[in-house]
Amino acid sequence: MRTSQVAGLQADTARLVVSCRDQQGIIAGVSGLLARLGANIVGSHQYSTDPEGGAFFLRMEFHLAGIDGDRERVRAALAPVVERFQMDSKLVFPGERKRLAIFVSRREHCLLDLLWRWRRHDFEFDLAGVVSNHPDLRYEVEEFGVAYHHVPVEQGRKPQAEQKMIELLAGNVDLVVLARYMQILSGDFLRRIGCPVINIHHSFLPAFMGASPYVQAHQRGVKLIGATAHYATEDLDEGPIIEQDVMRVRQSMSARDLERVGADIERIVLARAVHWHLDDRLFIHENRTVMLG
Amino acid sequence: MRTSQVAGLQADTARLVVSCRDQQGIIAGVSGLLARLGANIVGSHQYSTDPEGGAFFLRMEFHLAGIDGDRERVRAALAPVVERFQMDSKLVFPGERKRLAIFVSRREHCLLDLLWRWRRHDFEFDLAGVVSNHPDLRYEVEEFGVAYHHVPVEQGRKPQAEQKMIELLAGNVDLVVLARYMQILSGDFLRRIGCPVINIHHSFLPAFMGASPYVQAHQRGVKLIGATAHYATEDLDEGPIIEQDVMRVRQSMSARDLERVGADIERIVLARAVHWHLDDRLFIHENRTVMLG
Amino acid sequence: MRTSQVAGLQADTARLVVSCRDQQGIIAGVSGLLARLGANIVGSHQYSTDPEGGAFFLRMEFHLAGIDGDRERVRAALAPVVERFQMDSKLVFPGERKRLAIFVSRREHCLLDLLWRWRRHDFEFDLAGVVSNHPDLRYEVEEFGVAYHHVPVEQGRKPQAEQKMIELLAGNVDLVVLARYMQILSGDFLRRIGCPVINIHHSFLPAFMGASPYVQAHQRGVKLIGATAHYATEDLDEGPIIEQDVMRVRQSMSARDLERVGADIERIVLARAVHWHLDDRLFIHENRTVMLG
Amino acid sequence: MRTSQVAGLQADTARLVVSCRDQQGIIAGVSGLLARLGANIVGSHQYSTDPEGGAFFLRMEFHLAGIDGDRERVRAALAPVVERFQMDSKLVFPGERKRLAIFVSRREHCLLDLLWRWRRHDFEFDLAGVVSNHPDLRYEVEEFGVAYHHVPVEQGRKPQAEQKMIELLAGNVDLVVLARYMQILSGDFLRRIGCPVINIHHSFLPAFMGASPYVQAHQRGVKLIGATAHYATEDLDEGPIIEQDVMRVRQSMSARDLERVGADIERIVLARAVHWHLDDRLFIHENRTVMLG
Repeated sequence: MRTSQVAGLQADTARLVVSCRDQQGIIAGVSGLLARLGANIVGSHQYSTDPEGGAFFLRMEFHLAGIDGDRERVRAALAPVVERFQMDSKLVFPGERKRLAIFVSRREHCLLDLLWRWRRHDFEFDLAGVVSNHPDLRYEVEEFGVAYHHVPVEQGRKPQAEQKMIELLAGNVDLVVLARYMQILSGDFLRRIGCPVINIHHSFLPAFMGASPYVQAHQRGVKLIGATAHYATEDLDEGPIIEQDVMRVRQSMSARDLERVGADIERIVLARAVHWHLDDRLFIHENRTVMLG
Repeated sequence: MRTSQVAGLQADTARLVVSCRDQQGIIAGVSGLLARLGANIVGSHQYSTDPEGGAFFLRMEFHLAGIDGDRERVRAALAPVVERFQMDSKLVFPGERKRLAIFVSRREHCLLDLLWRWRRHDFEFDLAGVVSNHPDLRYEVEEFGVAYHHVPVEQGRKPQAEQKMIELLAGNVDLVVLARYMQILSGDFLRRIGCPVINIHHSFLPAFMGASPYVQAHQRGVKLIGATAHYATEDLDEGPIIEQDVMRVRQSMSARDLERVGADIERIVLARAVHWHLDDRLFIHENRTVMLG
Repeated sequence: MRTSQVAGLQADTARLVVSCRDQQGIIAGVSGLLARLGANIVGSHQYSTDPEGGAFFLRMEFHLAGIDGDRERVRAALAPVVERFQMDSKLVFPGERKRLAIFVSRREHCLLDLLWRWRRHDFEFDLAGVVSNHPDLRYEVEEFGVAYHHVPVEQGRKPQAEQKMIELLAGNVDLVVLARYMQILSGDFLRRIGCPVINIHHSFLPAFMGASPYVQAHQRGVKLIGATAHYATEDLDEGPIIEQDVMRVRQSMSARDLERVGADIERIVLARAVHWHLDDRLFIHENRTVMLG
Repeated sequence: MRTSQVAGLQADTARLVVSCRDQQGIIAGVSGLLARLGANIVGSHQYSTDPEGGAFFLRMEFHLAGIDGDRERVRAALAPVVERFQMDSKLVFPGERKRLAIFVSRREHCLLDLLWRWRRHDFEFDLAGVVSNHPDLRYEVEEFGVAYHHVPVEQGRKPQAEQKMIELLAGNVDLVVLARYMQILSGDFLRRIGCPVINIHHSFLPAFMGASPYVQAHQRGVKLIGATAHYATEDLDEGPIIEQDVMRVRQSMSARDLERVGADIERIVLARAVHWHLDDRLFIHENRTVMLG
């Protein structure tokens, strides 16, 4: 089932991911250099927030026979354009995989969905482990051959717990996924963990804040249950939106039924967001996520 | 194109709409009486919020040859069960149509969609006229042969404007539809108008309050644009939800594009809500709408 | 997590499921008897294809204190109405669970989704085992503590294989779920297995027949990928539809990406269909499925 | 309500639309020339079917102060790159609008939706007129100040009818929209009309061919009603798909109700397809539509 096509980049193909200030000649510069290298652009997407000095984002995949033995030559060839446009840039080569940590509390639907996709190579990543403030899901996680770190968050001792997580993970992960982790992470943690954090939460039309959102949604008689995946910021549910979707519910459903529908849509939406992040399709600009491709 | 099937009730068919306190024997009582009348139940939907004294709702359509010349006999036959269960009940006979007033400000998409469905008999109602706080849409409304009442709402003189609307409409309408009417109606108006009021507004995941919701939604990078139709209460956007739906938007869309998608989903959702109300499928219970069928 | 509410019927509640020829007085008859028993109807849904001798379907849940020790009294009380209207009827009491067999070939997404929902009591059923024409998924199934029966289907020896499945299952299962089982079951098997069979397959707009539907869909540039769950009949993909849904795909997706989206929508749709069947909400009428509630 | 933003291109902005064989250096070539002109790329989307000699499509919008008085200089500047890569190319300047003819039979929902969007400048085009094989909709079309050409298609005399349409339209239109035009256009007509033709038709999961698709869909109990917009080819319903969408239906709906839902989804989907075509976002490649942006 696992094929290189699924696993991300195909053989002899690399990905250039760039963000910089928009200015004239960026694409001409990059594609000119790639043409001189003998590379051919396989796919390219760009986005500009404003041609006059706005933010510019580029994701290009290019084919170059033997690129794997030639990484340094490619890097060197692109250096002038990176410098000239003061680009924030990244080159990804075949076989490179991101390293994830998944955080969870007690509800396992999003976690298990990600583990299951990981095992069947639905998308490719390495797993640094699962972190939880509860011991409940240890067995289910270890069955997958994945480490389970129980880090309790005692009342008034969140800094200590976060310190422990930092020690476990910082420098060792490229992405943290909050798969129904019900603790709010401090701004301090988000800065120190040193990598992006993706969160999933329910969304309703209209939004219900506070405890028991499914009970509120049931009382109000909502017709759709939704989920939103976003990058976590200090303001927990307010970071840049990555993906959203909804499912229709029937009137005869109980609040518990709505919650079950919510679990289905949450795991679908979170999986899409993680997948796009792994594919280097996502950029954060102000409070918005730009997706390329 | 207009057929009796579309127009609501088929020939020789009546509709009984009931709400009361839930208690044993209601359906047995109603259906027993109808059986004795020689009527046959064509369709029946019920909903109970709680079997122990909760609220009970019933919508039954039954066939009885010659019912049109026999309305009083049917009413009389049902009277004992209505009394016994202290029902709030209504009988609808073929050809009976509700009378609507449509309120609008300047944005015409919902209004025109309703007028267009009215003219092609998509669903059946009579029109008492269109009320607007602006003169802008007079020509477009009068083209349909419908009266246009311009009732300006001057600063600090809303009570006088509402009084004028009451004089125009009270006692003469069965439903008011707010088709993007941008004034808040007072609780006093809602009580005095003497009929239900349906409103439509945008909904986002998450909800954006305040002015320029489409600009906010664009800045936050939402993926779905939604609309919610609900019964109006004093707390304008908080009444019982009737219907909701969403459309997906593309990242390259501007705030203005989102607004255009919003117009499409608003008119679809409002039309469904009005249609179900005309069909006597909707009941209000606490802050929820119960829909039967 | 497992609560009686989730597990199906609540304590002291039973479900009556009925189909018969439509005729006057059915609901009056049933609800009259229940009232006399002292039972209260908690929820009731009915559907009639035609009041004049069409097919009538009813699903009623009623509350009666101590019903569990009283099953025979309830059955006896309902017998006269069952006989009078020549009903095909079934009573379901709290704690009764259906027994499933799941058939699979090599693609595991639908199977694992059902096993996972089973383990977390998302909905309640017993598992008679998994049957496969391939040995591949034995490990993944046995991890759940579920029996895996490898029944190869050799060229020209399908009758022998089906005979083996009949011996394994007939009389021991209430439902067979084809969770991406890629063999066509004979009409003979469907008759002898003695229980309903639910199948899932991809659906496209327009439909693509034959091999490699995802490649065809990709070549044609479809915008939506769908799935249809239906009761299996001899004409494999043509039985009564239970549920359908779609997901939107992006243009940059490969045929393999479409297949992955297809897997997501297939498991969601199949799970809904199985859930509704377990809840006794589904009736087959001609080539249509009637769903109540 | 009408703003230049809505009307298509903003002031001082032009659009370059290109298709050619994929080869190294295309984007470098185009963007290099534009940079030398002093233009800045505002938005750019490209798609390649295969880097090794596949088909390449590009849609670029660029800003250049005073471009309107400078069209020939821009054309001349781009000529070398157009020639070098043997591009099929088009430049669109602010204020340029496509000219449409709309074909219709008797069902007016798609036609009226387009006329209504035209009048409110939802998107910008000129109207060459409406062509119908029936006289029925003359009044409704002429109300919009649009010419109505009744071209009957008598049995066995389709070539004569098509000849008349060619005389009315050929050389005078940029796009023909079949807004529920129920006659099959001959391959000869499609070649001679000299512009693309967009068609809309219902779509179901599974597809129902032949007469009365809504009756078939109702009998089979479908859960979703869809519509597909596509470019017309000789094989009427088989051309490249532009857009598709679905709406969910309720079980209690009649075949006539399904048809009404179908009308809603048809007009939404057709409007999107026409809009994208007007925006030069669509390219045909083999039997697929490539959409940029």
